Amino acid sequence: MKARRKSGESIAEYVVEQKGKLKADFALVCDTELFAPNLPTLCVGLRGLIYTEIEAYGAKTDLHSGVYGGAAPNPFFGLIEIISKLKDSKGHVLVPGFYKGVKAPSKDELKAWKRLPFNEETYRKTEVGSKVLTGEPGFSVLYRTWARPTLEVHGMPGGFTAAGAKTVIPAKAAAKVSMRLVPNQDPDDILKKYRKFVKKLTPKGIETKIKVWSKGPASVVGTDNPYIKAATEALHDTFKKETVFIRSGGSIPIVNDFYQGLNIPTVMMGFGLPDDNLHAPNEKFHIPNFHHGIETICLFFEKLGGK
Amino acid sequence: MKARRKSGESIAEYVVEQKGKLKADFALVCDTELFAPNLPTLCVGLRGLIYTEIEAYGAKTDLHSGVYGGAAPNPFFGLIEIISKLKDSKGHVLVPGFYKGVKAPSKDELKAWKRLPFNEETYRKTEVGSKVLTGEPGFSVLYRTWARPTLEVHGMPGGFTAAGAKTVIPAKAAAKVSMRLVPNQDPDDILKKYRKFVKKLTPKGIETKIKVWSKGPASVVGTDNPYIKAATEALHDTFKKETVFIRSGGSIPIVNDFYQGLNIPTVMMGFGLPDDNLHAPNEKFHIPNFHHGIETICLFFEKLGGK
Repeated sequence: MKARRKSGESIAEYVVEQKGKLKADFALVCDTELFAPNLPTLCVGLRGLIYTEIEAYGAKTDLHSGVYGGAAPNPFFGLIEIISKLKDSKGHVLVPGFYKGVKAPSKDELKAWKRLPFNEETYRKTEVGSKVLTGEPGFSVLYRTWARPTLEVHGMPGGFTAAGAKTVIPAKAAAKVSMRLVPNQDPDDILKKYRKFVKKLTPKGIETKIKVWSKGPASVVGTDNPYIKAATEALHDTFKKETVFIRSGGSIPIVNDFYQGLNIPTVMMGFGLPDDNLHAPNEKFHIPNFHHGIETICLFFEKLGGK
Repeated sequence: MKARRKSGESIAEYVVEQKGKLKADFALVCDTELFAPNLPTLCVGLRGLIYTEIEAYGAKTDLHSGVYGGAAPNPFFGLIEIISKLKDSKGHVLVPGFYKGVKAPSKDELKAWKRLPFNEETYRKTEVGSKVLTGEPGFSVLYRTWARPTLEVHGMPGGFTAAGAKTVIPAKAAAKVSMRLVPNQDPDDILKKYRKFVKKLTPKGIETKIKVWSKGPASVVGTDNPYIKAATEALHDTFKKETVFIRSGGSIPIVNDFYQGLNIPTVMMGFGLPDDNLHAPNEKFHIPNFHHGIETICLFFEKLGGK
C-alpha cells in the first residue's frame, strides 16, 4: 500500500505512465479567464510553485513561559528570525542565487501588457482593498504578479491560537512558506538553495526540518505557436476584437505535466471573468460567455482541421 | 449585563470592592513549591505579565497567492517584520526604554541563588531538553527566569494551518506576544512604549491593532518582612534545615491584587515539588509534604501569635 497521495498526484503519475495512450499534438485547458468582459484573452504563461512547511523544534515539551521564559528556546522566534531574512521589506527574495537566470518577458509581451485595460489604483482599491500595494519597486503590478518570483507565508501552525491567553512556549511551531517561480527557475535547484539558506539562518537551540508539499516549474508558450495562433484567430472571430495575451501568476500543475510528460504545449483558453468569485461565496458564470465559449472552441477546431 | 469576564477578573474586582471586609495583616498563598525535595523554600518574588495580541490587517479579503503574490500585502510578513525587531537573537528586548529602571535583585539574594542545588546543564537536559539554552548573555538561568524581563510569542493565528497546502494570502493574521516584567517596570508604562514601538515598526500596507489580554506588575517581598521571617522559622523548624529564598518567573495575579487593593504582603509558602507535573498528565503530590505542610502552617501561626 502506498501512503495517502497528495491532491493531483495520481493524474501527474498517470500522464507519465500512459504516455502512449495520451499521445496528442496539444492540450486545451479551460481554467483561465478573460482579462475583461468581451475582451478575447489567451493565457500564455503560468508561474511555478514550491510549497513548503518549515517545522521548528525547541524544547522537548511545551513549557510555561513564566517558569522557562528567558532560558528555553522558542520555535516561533526561530521561525521569525529565519523568515525575516528570506525576503526584505521591499519584496525582494534573499535566498542566494534565487534570481539567477530568471527569464524576463519579451519586450513585445511587456508592451502588450501596457495596453491592457488595467489600472493599478483601481486594482488596489477594488480587488486588494489595502492602503498600498507591496512588491519589488521598478516592476508594474502585472509584471510582479505574472513574471516575477515571490515568497509568501500562508500560516504558522503551533502554540496557542484560540481566543484569550495561554503562556506557552511551544515545543514545536511551523510555517507554511511558498515560492512562485518564473521561467528558467528550476524547482529542484531553488529548493536546494532554499534548504541550505534556511539551515544557515536557523538559530542555535532550534532545529528545522523542511517538508515539501508540492513543486513545479513555470510554463510559458510562445504566441507564435501554431495552436496558440489558431486559438487567437478563433477568439478574434467570435468576439470581433483583437485577442490579448496575458499570463497568470498562479499555477496549473497539469499544464506542466503535459509539457514534461507528453512534450506538448497547452492552449489555455478559458471564459471566466475576473469578478466570478472563483471558489468563493456567490460564484457565478456569465451566460453569454458560455455561448461565446462553445462558438470559439468549434471555430478553433475548425481552423486546426483546415491547417 | 456586563460582557463575559476574563478568568480571574471577578476576584480582582472583589478584592478592591470589599476592601473593608477583607482587612488583614498579610495573605498566605500556597501556590509555590519547594526548590528541591526536603529543602524548605519560600518564594519571595514573582514576575509580572503583559499578554497582548497584535492583530495585523492587509487586503480586504483572503487572496490567492498565485494571482496576488507580489502585489498584495501579507499580514504574516508584517508581523514577522515587527516581531523580528522586538527582541534580538540574544534575547534582549528592543522596545525603547524597556529596561529603564529595572531593579536588580540584591547582592545577598544573588549570592543565595548561587548556593541553591541547581545545575544549568542538568536543567537543560532534563527539564528543557533543547540543544542549548537561550537568553541574555551574562545572566545565570535563575537570574534570567526569575529577575529579568522577557518577551515571548505563544501563537500566530490566521491563514491556513491544517495539514497540506493552501496558497492563501490571509486578510488578517495575529500574534500572541507576552512580556514578563520585573520590579520597577510599570505595566502601563511598558505597554505604552510597546504600542508606540509596534506602531513604528508596522510596515506600509499593514494596519495593526493591539489587544491586551492581561497586565500586572511583578511583586517582591523583602526577606526581612516579619511575616516572611515567621514563615522562614516555621519551615526551618519543620524540615530541620535552613530555609532558602527563591523567586518564580511566573505570575500569581491575586498576590498583586492583595498588595494593590489591600496594601498587604503575601507569604508564598507552598509544598509542591518541581516534578509534580503541575496541570499536566500524571500530576502528583508528595504525601510527606502534605504532613510537613500542615505542621509548618500550624507552627507559622503559633509563631505569629507569639509576636
